[in-house]
Amino acid sequence: MGAVSDIADAAKRILLGRPMRSEHLGNTLLPKRIALPVFASDALSSVAYAPDEILLTLAIAGVAASTVSLWAGLGVVFVLIVVVLSYRQNVHAYPSGGGDYEVATTNLGAPAGLSVASALLVDYVLTVAVSISSASQYAASAIPALRGHEATAAVVAVVVLALVNLRGVRESGTLFAIPTYCFMALIGLMAAVGAVRYFAGELPMAESHDFEVAPSAGFDQGLMGLAGAFLFARAFASGCAALTGVEAISNGVPAFRKPKSRNAATTLALLGSISASMVVAILLLAQATGVKYVEDPATQLTLNGAPPPQTYAQHPTIGQLAAAVFQGFSPAFYAISAITGLILVLAANTAFNGFPVLGSILAKDGYLPRQLHTRGDRLAFSNGILTLAVAAVVLILAFDAQVTRLIQLYIVGVFVSFTLSQLGMVRHWTRELRRQPDPVERKRMLRSRVINVVGFGCTGFVLIIVLLTKFTHGAYIAILAMAALYVLMLAIHRHYGRVRDELELDDVAAARALPSRVHALVLVSKIHKPTMRALAYARASRPSVLEAVTVGVDADDIAELTARWESLDLPVPLRVLDSPFREISRPILKYVRSIRRESPRDLVVVYIPEYVVGHWWEQLLHNQSALRLKGRLLFTPGVVVASVPWQLSSSQGHTGLEDTTYVQGRVPRF
Amino acid sequence: MGAVSDIADAAKRILLGRPMRSEHLGNTLLPKRIALPVFASDALSSVAYAPDEILLTLAIAGVAASTVSLWAGLGVVFVLIVVVLSYRQNVHAYPSGGGDYEVATTNLGAPAGLSVASALLVDYVLTVAVSISSASQYAASAIPALRGHEATAAVVAVVVLALVNLRGVRESGTLFAIPTYCFMALIGLMAAVGAVRYFAGELPMAESHDFEVAPSAGFDQGLMGLAGAFLFARAFASGCAALTGVEAISNGVPAFRKPKSRNAATTLALLGSISASMVVAILLLAQATGVKYVEDPATQLTLNGAPPPQTYAQHPTIGQLAAAVFQGFSPAFYAISAITGLILVLAANTAFNGFPVLGSILAKDGYLPRQLHTRGDRLAFSNGILTLAVAAVVLILAFDAQVTRLIQLYIVGVFVSFTLSQLGMVRHWTRELRRQPDPVERKRMLRSRVINVVGFGCTGFVLIIVLLTKFTHGAYIAILAMAALYVLMLAIHRHYGRVRDELELDDVAAARALPSRVHALVLVSKIHKPTMRALAYARASRPSVLEAVTVGVDADDIAELTARWESLDLPVPLRVLDSPFREISRPILKYVRSIRRESPRDLVVVYIPEYVVGHWWEQLLHNQSALRLKGRLLFTPGVVVASVPWQLSSSQGHTGLEDTTYVQGRVPRF
Repeated sequence: MGAVSDIADAAKRILLGRPMRSEHLGNTLLPKRIALPVFASDALSSVAYAPDEILLTLAIAGVAASTVSLWAGLGVVFVLIVVVLSYRQNVHAYPSGGGDYEVATTNLGAPAGLSVASALLVDYVLTVAVSISSASQYAASAIPALRGHEATAAVVAVVVLALVNLRGVRESGTLFAIPTYCFMALIGLMAAVGAVRYFAGELPMAESHDFEVAPSAGFDQGLMGLAGAFLFARAFASGCAALTGVEAISNGVPAFRKPKSRNAATTLALLGSISASMVVAILLLAQATGVKYVEDPATQLTLNGAPPPQTYAQHPTIGQLAAAVFQGFSPAFYAISAITGLILVLAANTAFNGFPVLGSILAKDGYLPRQLHTRGDRLAFSNGILTLAVAAVVLILAFDAQVTRLIQLYIVGVFVSFTLSQLGMVRHWTRELRRQPDPVERKRMLRSRVINVVGFGCTGFVLIIVLLTKFTHGAYIAILAMAALYVLMLAIHRHYGRVRDELELDDVAAARALPSRVHALVLVSKIHKPTMRALAYARASRPSVLEAVTVGVDADDIAELTARWESLDLPVPLRVLDSPFREISRPILKYVRSIRRESPRDLVVVYIPEYVVGHWWEQLLHNQSALRLKGRLLFTPGVVVASVPWQLSSSQGHTGLEDTTYVQGRVPRF
Repeated sequence: MGAVSDIADAAKRILLGRPMRSEHLGNTLLPKRIALPVFASDALSSVAYAPDEILLTLAIAGVAASTVSLWAGLGVVFVLIVVVLSYRQNVHAYPSGGGDYEVATTNLGAPAGLSVASALLVDYVLTVAVSISSASQYAASAIPALRGHEATAAVVAVVVLALVNLRGVRESGTLFAIPTYCFMALIGLMAAVGAVRYFAGELPMAESHDFEVAPSAGFDQGLMGLAGAFLFARAFASGCAALTGVEAISNGVPAFRKPKSRNAATTLALLGSISASMVVAILLLAQATGVKYVEDPATQLTLNGAPPPQTYAQHPTIGQLAAAVFQGFSPAFYAISAITGLILVLAANTAFNGFPVLGSILAKDGYLPRQLHTRGDRLAFSNGILTLAVAAVVLILAFDAQVTRLIQLYIVGVFVSFTLSQLGMVRHWTRELRRQPDPVERKRMLRSRVINVVGFGCTGFVLIIVLLTKFTHGAYIAILAMAALYVLMLAIHRHYGRVRDELELDDVAAARALPSRVHALVLVSKIHKPTMRALAYARASRPSVLEAVTVGVDADDIAELTARWESLDLPVPLRVLDSPFREISRPILKYVRSIRRESPRDLVVVYIPEYVVGHWWEQLLHNQSALRLKGRLLFTPGVVVASVPWQLSSSQGHTGLEDTTYVQGRVPRF
């Protein structure tokens, strides 16, 4: 209402676009060539930071890009293949798109489902924080002016993303397809050119080739002993960030063209192969060009025994590789940096779609406030988007947009979700096998179960490694956040359960019983049009008893009011309630209670004349006591509070219809 | 409602005390011996800083406490006497306690009254800021640890005062009497001892006696020429701060014992004499002991040609005098500092009483939001107290609790109010004279008019001097604030006027017309107890048409709902409204409008089942769409919104009666 909301409405219309009829949503099923880029950005983008994290962790032991890092990378690729194979089973068994939350809830029960949900919600936040932080690192690598302002750039990017998503752009799929395919093409081109030049013996060295990596304290012997093994495990765990986003397709099955499951499974296999190839290619190239990548170049790198020059700015591995492979052709470096940054932003954008959808599903199941459920209500999505943006900004600022520090919190959630989902799938097949007599089908199911058992073992093993190697580095924060969410959602669910039990219609006959009589009260403060309207409406409803009621605060005012009341010869008696403390609500409440005490089966209807104003500030000048009184009357059983509105002229032009709650058009991606 | 407000209630009870029946207020009429201290603290306390400001301003010309400062002081005393004599006329003519606002409004019209009101509101804020800043200066003078933290100490003091006033302590008068009489006694004792020692030729010199005051640029010749005259006028204007608080008695006449006016006039005369004696005594003593008081000791004072030692901390004049007069007996210095600080706090406290009372009068006249009026509603006073405290804290922080800078803003308002009030009194007598035939009475009135004419001339002259000498030093801020308040209050008044005209009962016959039929709708989202209750209540009111209405968002849900509705065999049809955009409010609004369009003389009553919850956070989990819908339905003419509450078990123990709005006991001081 009011001018403020007029402006707000206009601004919303401009920023958020026109509403869209919901039927349109159904027409946007995706062919594989579009589905791949739409779902792939999250998974593919992680190759922009996963290899860096492997190199950086190993550098603690003084090890540069080498066979060791390749082993870690191959470990990641192995897990990736297992996960992709496992999720192909999910896609076939649960084509509804419920994802890990549905799989865990159905097969392992609500606590497991809720654990998965908490883990996913936390991970969506981290996806945004890590991807955008990494993107701002790429931007700073290409644009020196941004260096030192990475956190600010990241916060701005999150805000822009949130605005774009509040606007609910109906991404055409093409919007995703172009940069994703460009990214794949450029990384592929770089790998190919790099390979050709390597075998031709003319591959230039990376800019960091000449540096020496100084081992940190305790690693003078390199990657040896228990500490070395532990560090290798940590590098592997960090590299597993490359797996995030794989589960996205299993949530998005309904968005595929038919045959949905088959197409989704194919896309998943494609995605896995591309992702794996990229990780291996990057680690191979890094080894071939002698890339050194460390957390703190100033203390960890040396050049001929001396620290690196002050001006040395360490570029991300992909940037270093692009510079080396396309040496002498700087546009290639800028193109790869730009497209990598863009793909990272798209990855963050997938979280902006996934978070509110998961929130809506959780709300439907009563784990989050019910208002978040109605898909038709744009507010559900807006709240989800804003929550996600605020949480991500807090994380980015708390960790100064440093990917290396954020990554320690990451992937715990993903692997909790992977592991529980795979365990759920094992249960699923076991149950299905019990009622499946057909030997061909049984054989297929047995094979699927084997795959999911391997998937469970593998992801569970990685989860343990992640917890062991990263717990004290920051994973405990993610676990605390999950636990807090779990407890909160459980409390909300219990509350709804209690209320549902309380409201359950147990005694239909009692519920049909009618109050014997209606005792209507019209509150009168002055004699003016709103009062007369309330009186007329009250009379129109023909109650058994009708009284006008006023509170006697000022003797003169009351005398004037009663005199005028009598002079108007109204057919309704005016009762003046005593107010020794000169206040309004209490005498009315007491009077209502006394009526209820005398005839408990009567219904008391209190008619309150109320001003409807057009401006928020007018609200400050009117209605305060009416509003307070209404709130208190509602605590009394057997009372109905009837607001009789009087529309002040300032409210004209307002129809109550302006503040639309249309659904914003959005592709139901997952 | 809810646990939060339980705690809030308990906290309020502890902090703000038990409520008090309003009849008690009548029994607290004040005898003169209590009325004097109750009303005097504001006026008397200004002698704690007014002489300092005279000395400090004259010091700019290199002049120390001397005959010149005495002349300025005598000028102040002269104005004081004139003002006291003038206000004795006010007290007799307006015994109702309306004060300057009433006098100006009645005799000069609403704009003059509103100007006075704006001026007084601004001055109440400045009274708090100046008094508390000065008190913290005295505190820092006695407690060296506070030096440099005067602003913090002042803010803490304002907060404590605000809390005490929110609690609404029923000051027994004694609470005021003791420190006020102590202050008078101590200053009197100091003057007497000082006089005796002076005539005995053994009065010690003040600690600042040996310093030289260096004249500022342009005043090498001392207090000469136009600049000198202007500076003298500024010193006089600053000294006029001693007059603030004199008008307090004219607002407080109803609190006096009978004969009210006579007693008030006598108290006024007493107050004037005491105030005048104190100012003169302090300036005389300052001259005799050679006090030097400057704005910035480090640059303005010299000792044998060199700047004062780093450790030199300049004490306020009263402090320096106490140290000199009672030399060798330090408890006297501490006692005078403490009691002066206390009296300044009491002076600030009078503003905490005056501001909400004036606000309440202005609200009654429709210049401020009407909720501020009802005296019975403690909120009125609470809001006033909080507004005053916040404004004073802002001023204290903005001016770093420096009395000398704050005093530039001060007294403009007081003299605006004095001048308009005296002009109003002149008009008053002129009008009274027209209808008074009795020659004895006429003679008395003519004399009164002469006094008020002199008062008007005198205060108007001071107002001009204040404006001329202080405008650029800060008075313009006070004037801007007054103008802003004036415009705001006028806008509020116009708004209320427009609304009153709009609501005026012009056509009684039309207002009596009843709607032809009642079309009742019961909103149904689920079939549970609250819905059944709403249905029963709607049926009990026997409308012409009764329908249950639901919005079809989810086809499955609707199918289930209609099936259950039919199985229950309810005597009310269920209408399902289409919702292409899957939202709730709009289809209902449209349906209501369509009913109104078809039969415009029908009344539509919409019954909304509503949950009443016991905790604020439960509100977040329920009712959101019901609340939004209610707000929008009220924009439609011819609609009554009937809330049918369902009290959830968590709301039990809440009666709606807890949040009392009792009047807090307070002495109606003015």
